[in-house]
Amino acid sequence: MKENRVSRIMAALKEMGASQMLIVDPMSIYYLTGVYNEPHERFFALLLREDGKHAFFLNRLFSIHQEVGVEKVWYSDTDPVMEIVAKYIDANEVLGVDKDLKARFLLPLMEMKAAAGFINSSLAVDVTRGVKDEEEQEKMRVCSHINDMAMAEFKKLIHDGVTEKEVADQMLKIYKDLGADDVSFPPLVAFGANAADPPHGPDDTVLKEGDVILFDVGCIKDSYCSDMTRSFYYKTITDEHKFIYEAVREANEAAIAKVKPGVPLMELDLAARNLITDRGYGPEFNHRLGHFIGLGEHEYGDVSSVNPQPAVPGMIFSIEPGIYVKGDTGVRIEDLVLVTEDGCEVLNSFPKGLEIIG
Amino acid sequence: MKENRVSRIMAALKEMGASQMLIVDPMSIYYLTGVYNEPHERFFALLLREDGKHAFFLNRLFSIHQEVGVEKVWYSDTDPVMEIVAKYIDANEVLGVDKDLKARFLLPLMEMKAAAGFINSSLAVDVTRGVKDEEEQEKMRVCSHINDMAMAEFKKLIHDGVTEKEVADQMLKIYKDLGADDVSFPPLVAFGANAADPPHGPDDTVLKEGDVILFDVGCIKDSYCSDMTRSFYYKTITDEHKFIYEAVREANEAAIAKVKPGVPLMELDLAARNLITDRGYGPEFNHRLGHFIGLGEHEYGDVSSVNPQPAVPGMIFSIEPGIYVKGDTGVRIEDLVLVTEDGCEVLNSFPKGLEIIG
Repeated sequence: MKENRVSRIMAALKEMGASQMLIVDPMSIYYLTGVYNEPHERFFALLLREDGKHAFFLNRLFSIHQEVGVEKVWYSDTDPVMEIVAKYIDANEVLGVDKDLKARFLLPLMEMKAAAGFINSSLAVDVTRGVKDEEEQEKMRVCSHINDMAMAEFKKLIHDGVTEKEVADQMLKIYKDLGADDVSFPPLVAFGANAADPPHGPDDTVLKEGDVILFDVGCIKDSYCSDMTRSFYYKTITDEHKFIYEAVREANEAAIAKVKPGVPLMELDLAARNLITDRGYGPEFNHRLGHFIGLGEHEYGDVSSVNPQPAVPGMIFSIEPGIYVKGDTGVRIEDLVLVTEDGCEVLNSFPKGLEIIG
Repeated sequence: MKENRVSRIMAALKEMGASQMLIVDPMSIYYLTGVYNEPHERFFALLLREDGKHAFFLNRLFSIHQEVGVEKVWYSDTDPVMEIVAKYIDANEVLGVDKDLKARFLLPLMEMKAAAGFINSSLAVDVTRGVKDEEEQEKMRVCSHINDMAMAEFKKLIHDGVTEKEVADQMLKIYKDLGADDVSFPPLVAFGANAADPPHGPDDTVLKEGDVILFDVGCIKDSYCSDMTRSFYYKTITDEHKFIYEAVREANEAAIAKVKPGVPLMELDLAARNLITDRGYGPEFNHRLGHFIGLGEHEYGDVSSVNPQPAVPGMIFSIEPGIYVKGDTGVRIEDLVLVTEDGCEVLNSFPKGLEIIG
């Protein structure tokens, strides 16, 4: 068990009025125990208690052999599993439960009055996971570094007649050759007007002169996720597209320049948004500036114009302004940043200056 | 809305003491409305009420345009969605909820006292889905027929030096060429001793003379799933392997011969198990005989030695006995059967006689 992470969760839990919590999100369990398991329909949970009497509930069919420094409670498919779980919960205290706990597990605990009350306390885990410790920061640096190297390789895949799908299909192998374990999400490759639709997935569109080439890509290394976007142009660029590109690049840099402890996250969004609005493309920046990232490619926490939450050292999130002109082009430039004691560390170092390929 | 299916669910629900139910399983919602949607973290539910005041809760970000004959209640990410849902629930009646309803949706409904009580009523949907109507039966015939045709093609992939993975990698294309939409699960291809481990997935093992070749495969067509297993031998077969093969084939046929309305499902398992035990391989048949199937590749309901539930016309399940000899070989022969008024219809017609390939 990562005791430091447990302590932070228990402190947040206490503020919510609970002294014990049942965690079922497999990634949160991994975060605390180092054990990753996909339980499918079966019950898989970690009970944290203020008095330290934690318990880890495991089905005998799970292949989990490592010691995790917490009592393992094994059950079989034929056991009354929630009755077993109830015995480990303090019936006189409120139980915080994971937001993802399913009715078929929660209702029996309620019927047995296994706790004095039940609240959704997932935020206690979410806010803890939102602030990365040293070990996590280092892993985030490594996977972002692989992402930088991969972007250089992806550029080389561009040539006359290539399709988005042909490019995207080669990315996984490139990541693996660079040491990544997997992609963190299906790579987005968009040419020309396709890039005006942010979620556009790679299809059979053929690259043509004057197209933007947008890569929104990321990999997983040691369970941590990277995520970066770069936008290139193919052979030529119009003055308007150059204007758009520079607006997005400056917006990215303006937001990054503001990152430091205490700054409300909404101010980062607004720094980028105001710049783009000043350039006349406000409506064409139609999404939030960024999202948190770590064990999940999108984690709890967002960098949007309505989130007053202050930046805290250890937070890692994306800064990804974009301008999308329907039927024409789309440009997005995305980096991950780590909030430090006096500013931020940008985890991506792939250049952001305008580059015309080919 | 499939009114006939709704009525069957409401009848089952009534027996459980509820007159309304909140369904969130996307496949169950598809089963009732014809609308399939993957909501990810967002709330997506169908409320069924005895008085016919059903409601379909949809996030404005979902692309759902068809009419489904039920009131659509649209909400935005910024709306207090569970407060909206609560208004549609009869607060004086018990609410049955889907076993998969998450705590973050269930707890707010409880806090608002949106219903007189909350029970897990998923079984009402599960038992209804377990008995297929004519439309579903026809779709199950079609996808199983494609599976039969595909098996004939898969056999042709076998040649000297081929690996499990090379064979498995070609299966999706073969299915699609035959009209399927996708595989219903990642194909299992196991050579020789690998087949002794039922869940063994395809790897770089090279086929060699005397190996069993086990294919456990299925496809999806019009949302319905097929699933069949055949076991061949490569070039030669020992007398013991022949003995094992015939025991499994006879066990498959013995169980199928017993399928008819009213027969406890455990008797089917036992028919196969007793035959295999008589042949001396009881411990080597280490799983249940079969599982239900339809919109899901594994649905609620099982054909095991402990399930006394009687067969009912319209049920579709697998009959898949096997013998697994560690370090040596594994044989499984699986068909899907549809319980009819006076027996059963076997949905697979691919031959089961011992076949030596190559």
